[in-house]
Amino acid sequence: MTTYTYDRLFQFTCNSFKKIGCSEEHAATAAVGLLAADLRGIDSHGVARLSGYIRLWEVQRINPQPKIRLVHETPSTAVVDGDAGLGLVVAPFAMQVAIDKAKTAGTGWVSVRNSNHFGIAGYHAMMALKHDMIGMAMTNASALVAPTFSIERMLGTNPIAVAIPAGKQPAFVADFATTTAANGKLEILQRKNADTPLGWVQDKDGRSSTDANILKKQGALLPLGSDREHGSHKGYALGSIVDIFSAVLSGASYGPWAPPFPAYVPMPENMPGQGLGHFFGAMRVDAFRPAEEFKQHMDNWIGRFRAATPAPGHDHVLIPGDPEREAESIRYKEGIPVVDTVVADLQAIAAKFDLVL
Amino acid sequence: MTTYTYDRLFQFTCNSFKKIGCSEEHAATAAVGLLAADLRGIDSHGVARLSGYIRLWEVQRINPQPKIRLVHETPSTAVVDGDAGLGLVVAPFAMQVAIDKAKTAGTGWVSVRNSNHFGIAGYHAMMALKHDMIGMAMTNASALVAPTFSIERMLGTNPIAVAIPAGKQPAFVADFATTTAANGKLEILQRKNADTPLGWVQDKDGRSSTDANILKKQGALLPLGSDREHGSHKGYALGSIVDIFSAVLSGASYGPWAPPFPAYVPMPENMPGQGLGHFFGAMRVDAFRPAEEFKQHMDNWIGRFRAATPAPGHDHVLIPGDPEREAESIRYKEGIPVVDTVVADLQAIAAKFDLVL
Repeated sequence: MTTYTYDRLFQFTCNSFKKIGCSEEHAATAAVGLLAADLRGIDSHGVARLSGYIRLWEVQRINPQPKIRLVHETPSTAVVDGDAGLGLVVAPFAMQVAIDKAKTAGTGWVSVRNSNHFGIAGYHAMMALKHDMIGMAMTNASALVAPTFSIERMLGTNPIAVAIPAGKQPAFVADFATTTAANGKLEILQRKNADTPLGWVQDKDGRSSTDANILKKQGALLPLGSDREHGSHKGYALGSIVDIFSAVLSGASYGPWAPPFPAYVPMPENMPGQGLGHFFGAMRVDAFRPAEEFKQHMDNWIGRFRAATPAPGHDHVLIPGDPEREAESIRYKEGIPVVDTVVADLQAIAAKFDLVL
Repeated sequence: MTTYTYDRLFQFTCNSFKKIGCSEEHAATAAVGLLAADLRGIDSHGVARLSGYIRLWEVQRINPQPKIRLVHETPSTAVVDGDAGLGLVVAPFAMQVAIDKAKTAGTGWVSVRNSNHFGIAGYHAMMALKHDMIGMAMTNASALVAPTFSIERMLGTNPIAVAIPAGKQPAFVADFATTTAANGKLEILQRKNADTPLGWVQDKDGRSSTDANILKKQGALLPLGSDREHGSHKGYALGSIVDIFSAVLSGASYGPWAPPFPAYVPMPENMPGQGLGHFFGAMRVDAFRPAEEFKQHMDNWIGRFRAATPAPGHDHVLIPGDPEREAESIRYKEGIPVVDTVVADLQAIAAKFDLVL
């Protein structure tokens, strides 16, 4: 484990993106988005993935100089074509379109095709907060999840983020995979050589499993709910909705045809659309009621839930976004801890591109 | 168990609503909405609740002649005040506003205050389908659900419905409570004197329980995910989002202050808003891409998921909405089975209002 300052990791990440051909502006945008994950304690989605993005560029699945364009629009909607760019660059562009639409139409909704992985959904949703808007972000992803009653991987972990502004309280920020556990949780257990709890994964024959490496053996992640009796059909429906809003609405590739993140995995055949898809939303709070009034009630909502009677063994009830915000304030000051395997990855990038980590 | 034709139950329900003072038009609207639950096999939300609605009218919590009005709007949003009317009447009004907004702005989003229970969310979301729109509906409800790490009931079962049109395939219709199991599932087990699976409920001290009557003993339903290790913080976040969109955006009463459905439960003190809240959305498919193209891809999506390799012991993978659609086609033809306790309830209504069941 090595701890780096935010600035140092930012400089390195930015320089790495410039080395693959990104403009200064795109490199900075991508680095801020990527490192938002590390700052917020979601280590699986930050610099740990930098080498993955670079490998995608090496096999020419990422266009470092995309011409991102709006291909269709109405007063409150748009479709954006990401031109195979980094999702980390395409997503903030599209979220800004949603915010701009909301300024005039009350809400803005943007579906994106021909993109790539965009980091953490919460970062993009939170762009709306400073405009007194509710922000939403979701994305489809490589198929790792078996629907209820199936053994075939049909959906990605397809996260949903919703950011809601408050007044004196910090914002409500939910950001979660529509599976029982995100893939990053498995990676952490793999490093520790530990088992998963029951209900996270199944083996290739659909039997429940605790093997953290089961995805390498044709196993699958389970939808939120784990099994039918505990509501996995609801997690399956949620993941499906994310897939359809992100990819079927926009013309991206969907379901089992979503492009894989690992560059060594061949692209699916007969893809029904282009690249990964995302979906963004922005709703102006004062398109419903005066913003100050709304934010006072959000303060009341948050205060009341924080004061809910805790269960024995727990100090207090958390509000969505609390853990990530606490991580952010600590890590911004004290630096970002990076595990050795990821440090080695970053050093390999430094060597390849003649950069200083 | 007695089986009634749809027409007979419709006539009786419609007449009952007229007896409490609803206009002919409102009574018919409410009866169609209520019976949509029975037709679709969601017995807990249909005629089984008719006596509950009537008791709410008796304690003057339902206004049978509401002046439903639009209190605020932008090109793509509106807030509707339900004037304490039946949710079964207020919801179709508000969903129609969302659909009308979508016709001109691409999408429409309506938050509703001062309403009551609206039956099944899926029925309202499905209103969008015939317009080639995606429909969404959600509502808050009486607090029965404890957030992760809490023993206090803070949220309702807060359902979400999303209806997505297809071409030759039937529409995709997801409609689910944001808890592991809906309250109606507990009611079915109570009638059978059976236990719940682990992971559905907890007792008043936060210990896991299998007692189907635990809600009468200060226990609580659990958010989708059941416990922290299996993602209950995600179900808690989803239920919270439904509460905020439905009630904080509109000015309805939220969280533990949501008005209770049972008329004998006193209203919460210091309510921060008026009545129950709902949230509706409509998105014109061709605000994103040509409708025929979208529907062809939805057919492809649905066909591919239906053909996903089934797990041993299962014939095939279901698409959200399949079981309800099958129930509807059978029950419309063969009639709606009503359990004896509900028949007795309906007979009591018939006696009270001098109606024929």
